[in-house]
Parts: sequence; C-alpha cells; structure tokens
Amino acid sequence: MISETTISTQQKKMIDWAKLRADFPILDQQVHGHPLVYLDNAASSQKPRAVIDCLSNYYEKDNANVHRGIHELSNRATAAFEASRQRVATFINAKTQDEIIFTRGTTEGINLIAASWGSKNIKAGDKILLTEMEHHSNIVPWQLLAEKTGAKLVYIPVTGDEGLLDLSKLDQLLTPEVKLFAFTHISNTLGTLNPVAELCERARKLGVTTLVDAAQSAGHLPLDVQSLGCDFLVFSGHKICGPTGIGVLWGRQEILDNMPPYHGGGEMIVTVDFFKSTFKKAPHRFEAGTPDISGVIALHAALDYLDAVGRENIFKHDQELATYCYDQLAQLKNVRLFGPKTGRAGLVSFLLEDVHAHDVVTVADQRGVALRGGHHCNQPLMKKLGIASTARASFYFYNTRAEVDRFIEVTREIQKFFGA
Amino acid sequence: MISETTISTQQKKMIDWAKLRADFPILDQQVHGHPLVYLDNAASSQKPRAVIDCLSNYYEKDNANVHRGIHELSNRATAAFEASRQRVATFINAKTQDEIIFTRGTTEGINLIAASWGSKNIKAGDKILLTEMEHHSNIVPWQLLAEKTGAKLVYIPVTGDEGLLDLSKLDQLLTPEVKLFAFTHISNTLGTLNPVAELCERARKLGVTTLVDAAQSAGHLPLDVQSLGCDFLVFSGHKICGPTGIGVLWGRQEILDNMPPYHGGGEMIVTVDFFKSTFKKAPHRFEAGTPDISGVIALHAALDYLDAVGRENIFKHDQELATYCYDQLAQLKNVRLFGPKTGRAGLVSFLLEDVHAHDVVTVADQRGVALRGGHHCNQPLMKKLGIASTARASFYFYNTRAEVDRFIEVTREIQKFFGA
Repeated sequence: MISETTISTQQKKMIDWAKLRADFPILDQQVHGHPLVYLDNAASSQKPRAVIDCLSNYYEKDNANVHRGIHELSNRATAAFEASRQRVATFINAKTQDEIIFTRGTTEGINLIAASWGSKNIKAGDKILLTEMEHHSNIVPWQLLAEKTGAKLVYIPVTGDEGLLDLSKLDQLLTPEVKLFAFTHISNTLGTLNPVAELCERARKLGVTTLVDAAQSAGHLPLDVQSLGCDFLVFSGHKICGPTGIGVLWGRQEILDNMPPYHGGGEMIVTVDFFKSTFKKAPHRFEAGTPDISGVIALHAALDYLDAVGRENIFKHDQELATYCYDQLAQLKNVRLFGPKTGRAGLVSFLLEDVHAHDVVTVADQRGVALRGGHHCNQPLMKKLGIASTARASFYFYNTRAEVDRFIEVTREIQKFFGA
Repeated sequence: MISETTISTQQKKMIDWAKLRADFPILDQQVHGHPLVYLDNAASSQKPRAVIDCLSNYYEKDNANVHRGIHELSNRATAAFEASRQRVATFINAKTQDEIIFTRGTTEGINLIAASWGSKNIKAGDKILLTEMEHHSNIVPWQLLAEKTGAKLVYIPVTGDEGLLDLSKLDQLLTPEVKLFAFTHISNTLGTLNPVAELCERARKLGVTTLVDAAQSAGHLPLDVQSLGCDFLVFSGHKICGPTGIGVLWGRQEILDNMPPYHGGGEMIVTVDFFKSTFKKAPHRFEAGTPDISGVIALHAALDYLDAVGRENIFKHDQELATYCYDQLAQLKNVRLFGPKTGRAGLVSFLLEDVHAHDVVTVADQRGVALRGGHHCNQPLMKKLGIASTARASFYFYNTRAEVDRFIEVTREIQKFFGA
C-alpha cells in the first residue's frame, strides 16, 4: 500500500502522462486502420498492467476460497481480500473497514440498500427524493420499492440543456416526509458535478438519509465520505481501472448494523438451525457466498495505481480535456451541447444537427474513435430535454489533447459526410 | 468452441493427466517446504493457463462495456459475452441461451430465485421442501422467504453417517402443499450423489417446482437439464476452473418470463419514465447493471477446457481417487468416515478420534497438504450427526494417486503426533 505521504509527495511531482498511458496495453492498437482513441471511459475504464498482472498473479500463486480456510493458500487469499477492504476504507476515508461491503457494482449496491435498508425503513406515504439526472440504476430500484411499499418518488428538476439541479425547488421538495435522498455525484450524461456536501447537510438537518451514486466520481476526484456527509455511497471498480464485476457499498456502521440481511447463505451467518439462523454484523452480513476474490484483490491494485497518480491530478487533467473538447465543439456549427459550461467533470455530451447520435458514433468508430451514443440509461432526462439520445466523449487520465483534436477532426468529417 | 464430436473423440483417447496438471501454474509450488498437495477443490478449484490468459487477453485487447456500445471494442466484448451465454447453454443442454442468467455464483442464483420467483409464488401456508444435507446457501434464503411470507420449511432426513437421503419419507413429505423442492446434486460434506432425475420426476407429477444446487456437480460430471428434469439449476464458475465472482442460474424459459424483476437498473429495462418502467424478457431482465464481463468470458474458456478433458473422464478420475482415499482412510484405526461407501463423488469427510478437525487441517498444512476443516456451511447436518466439524479432502482432475498417498502418510503422522 502507498502511504498518504508518498501520494501527496508524488502529486507534487510533474506527472509524465505519456508514461502512464504506456501502462495500458489495450490503448496501443489500431481500430479499422486508425489508432484507437478510446473516449468511452464513463461506460468503462481501461486497466493498467499492474491490475492485469495482479489478477494473473493471484491465480498463479495464491488462489483459494477465503475466510473459512486454515491452509496457506486460503490464508494468503483471505489476507489479500481483507487488505483490499482496508484499502477501500482509506480510499474514501471511511471510519473503519467494517463499513465497506463488496458488491458487483454500483447497481447492486443501490439494490442492496433498497432491499435491506429500504424494506425496513420505507413505508406507505414516505417519499424518496431523487433528481431528474439519475441513471436508471438510481431510479428503477426505488420504483420497485415504491410499488411494494406504497412510497412515493419525488424528483429535483434539471434546469435544461445546461444540466444543473434547480435547487430553488429544494425547500419545497426536501421535507420531513422524505426518508431517503438519493442522487448522483456526477451526471453520466451531462457531466454536472453536484454539490454533494451542501445537499447532504440540508438533508441531515431534517433527519433524511442520503445515498450518493459515486459511479462517475470515485477514482476521478478525491472522495471523503466524512466531508461529503452522506450516509451511503456506492461505486464500481470497472470504471476506475479495476476489473469488471466488483463494486463497493459504503454505509455508516450504525446504519449497516441495523439493516436486515440481503442475501442468505454461507459467510453471513453465525448459527444456522433448520428453522432459524443468526447473522454476523456488517460487512459480512451482506456478503453471502463466495465473493469475487480476484476482483476484490485487483481493485486494491487499481486504487494504489490511482493514488500514485493522484486523484487531484486526474481530476484536473480530465477537466482540462473536457473543457478543451467542449470549447472546440462549441466552435463548430450546428452542434447542441449538454451540461454546464463551466465546472464540468470529464465528459461532453452533444448532438450534431440532422445527424442521429448513433450515426455519429458509428462513423467515429470507423475512424478509430470510440464514443458512446444513446440514452445513457437516462431515458427520463432525455424525454425532459426533448431528445432520444446524445453522443458522448468521456475522458480519463490516459487520454491526451491530441486525441481530443483527432475527435474534433473526425466530428468535422462526420458533419461533412452527412452534409450537416 | 470445441464441437461435441471433437469432445467425444478426445474422450476416447488416453488422457495424459500429468500434462493436464502442468496447465495449472499454481500447483507447482512449495508450501512450508513441501510440495503443495491441493485437496480443497470443493471450496474452490484452481485455474488452467487458458483461463488466466483469457482474462489478460480480454483486458489487453478487447475490454469495453457491453450491449449499449456501438464501437469496435464494445462490439467485441459484447460478442464474446453473449458467446459465453451460448456456450453455457450447450454445456448443460438448455433449450436456448435465453435461459442462462449470469450471477455472482450459486448463492446469488438461489437468492435471485427466492427474491423473484419466491416473492410471486410462495404464500402463507405453502411448504418449501429441502434436505438435511443442504448447504447454508440453500437453507437461509428459504428461511428469510418463509419469515416474509409465512411459508414453512420441511426437510428430507439424512440417514446418518452414511449420508443418504431417507427416501422412505418422500411420499409423506412431497405433498401438494409443497411449492418448491430445492436440493443439492452432490453434498459438499458427505460426497453423496443424489438421484436428481428421480426426485424431479416425482416432484413434477405433483406440479412442484424443482431447484437443483449443482455447485458440486457442474464441471465434475456431465450435466443435462433436460434429462435431469428440473426447473432451476444453479452453479458457480470458481469451482470449475473459472474465475471467482461468476455463476450461472438456469431456468425454464416459461418460468423465467413470468418472474418479476430482481434488481432494477440499466440493461434490464425497455422503457423508464420517472414513475414507471417496463422490463426486458429473460435473461436481461435479471442482469441489471454492468455485468462481470471478464468473468463471463473466462468462464467460456473454463467450459471449453473441461469439455476438452471430458466430464465423464473427470468424474471417473475423481471418483477413483475418492474411493481410493476412502478405502485407505478406512484401514487406519480410530477414523470416522462420512458419506456413502460406494457411488460417492470426489470428496471424503472424516474425523480422527480425539483430534479436532481444525488441528488435522492445521498440521496437514504444515506438511503442504491443503484440506478444509469446519462445518462446511452445513451446521444443521453437523448437529444431526452430533459433531461440530469434519476434515475434508476434495479432489479434481489434476490431483494424483501419489497425492492421496501423501495425504494418507500425513494423516498417519497426525495420528502419531496427537497420540490418537
């Protein structure tokens, strides 16, 4: 593990971004005869050699089932597994590693909260406050819970194409009937960076529990659950240089310990009789069955890698690229841009007049540029903005200004190609 | 993919077991100064080079998020992901790949059925029939469901140390009030191989839905859901040469399509409004969020590997080792053996008189032999047998007769050491 001191020393050094880029073997390839320009990082990030090697090393040397074993391989696997839990706790400044629950990803984290905390704490007539910019993963679980319980969903409006939360409505919406306020840190479509600490503080004053969807922010900027002041926070490993299939749910210990079990099975029990069982405390209460051991261990390698680069550096780098990209796109004719003009996170959503977003992405791909086009799991937001989809370029620290230039060049070609 | 014809041709060839063993890099190591003898396969199997390389290759060449992408990497990842679904369908003879749902493992598969099928189909007064040899993962989810619904659990007894199901009680227990009959194919503690086809046939006559826990049988013997005649079947990838964090739930299509959603989120929806959503059919209805893409793809490599060896060959090999091991242990004094004398699967549970199972495993580990000791997530069965734990040696196709000899030698030393 890299100590905090080492990290901040390293952050002060000049970062050799090109050298970091070389850590990602996948980026060094041609797609349709062009160098790959991977701008689909909001969907999933690429993995450095350190993370790929961590997976291989684990399976070549230490693999065994965890926790219940007494032999050497099982001891090694268990030690590495629990060291990762401690590393995640440090990464987000949790009070203890017992507040860290490993999930498959952000979506499972939210569903776990809905199934466990929600089933105990949400009753008919209660309100769940969301925002109009939530990903489907932070809408549908609450719809399913509302159907079961008779609770009601309420949404903070988005201002329009500029994509800010209309906080003038907050006093009206954040009332004592609200039992949960669940919202995203960064919008995956708009690039909006929401004022999490302020929102959590206002919720806390009314005794409202808060859940932050950090899928787009974890690994992209420094994250401290104490200063954010939320009660739950969830994120995915695969978006932050970790493997697919692993994610994190953080919750305050006193809340977790009062939540009923999620899945039943091995690892989460103290005693099992034929007709009655007793359960461990968090985190194990919520981790039934053999976990994704290699995923957890490789997540540790990813977090070490990110902190060696420095999350402040990553944030600055990505924000600079996104701002540059936004400004370049704004200079083109017939381009509709989404999200805030300033203070945005590392992604840009746009539409070219008279060209379907899918066509933009398809033609860009033919030129080696990987974008994403569609509703980005934001169908209600799309409807509100009067559109079906957008094209999106999303950045990470291994992207370069030259790649943005290439993307803009390709966008010009697309406009020409479609006569737009 | 290897065709069925190729496989059966290969099965007829002599198998070079030593050569197969060399495919597993982890086995070539010393533990506490002795060559590793890994006999903890019922907890988790080791991985061949082909599976480890598949993971690396994926992250080095093709990684991207699946399904919603239009660019080259996403297309490659999606094609490989869905090819694995088709491969799993072939592996268990499902009617279509739409019957294959990817989960984190056996435990999640059972919990998914309890949460979705169970919440719709189990009512107060209904009975859920289990057996006394079930793993906690096939007990606790039903206890949680029974608590919510008012259903009752009923158990088929186990005969005693010999570990057979007492089927003389079946007519009494399998009645029309039973809505679900959930049981294990192979007991992870006893090595009992249950008569799945017969049990499913008797259940089907009464219209009882059946769920088979194939955690210990998938990848260890040929598995055909049509000839087994069950309605659901679940297993884990990590026990059959695949990575951790991936598993399979198979269900009959007509049953799956009538089940309500499990998790809400991206990928599982058709339309999302602020207050109402509509959902895809199986399998996507049950796979919310970004899945464990690399896990799914590497599972394909594992299944190809297993079928190149031949599951009939694997079963024979493991059964021969287990029988040899059982017979050798039976010749020692003061050994209590569990499970059937004949027809057992590839594992042996035992106790040495006056030596705690944990001590057996600890001392064996000091001599390089990896066993497992404990309740094996079978606490109710342990209580019934009047014991707290057993020591267990479990085999896979890379284990050798020489390793069994070494295990027996070490067991003798342990008896001597403890004066037992």
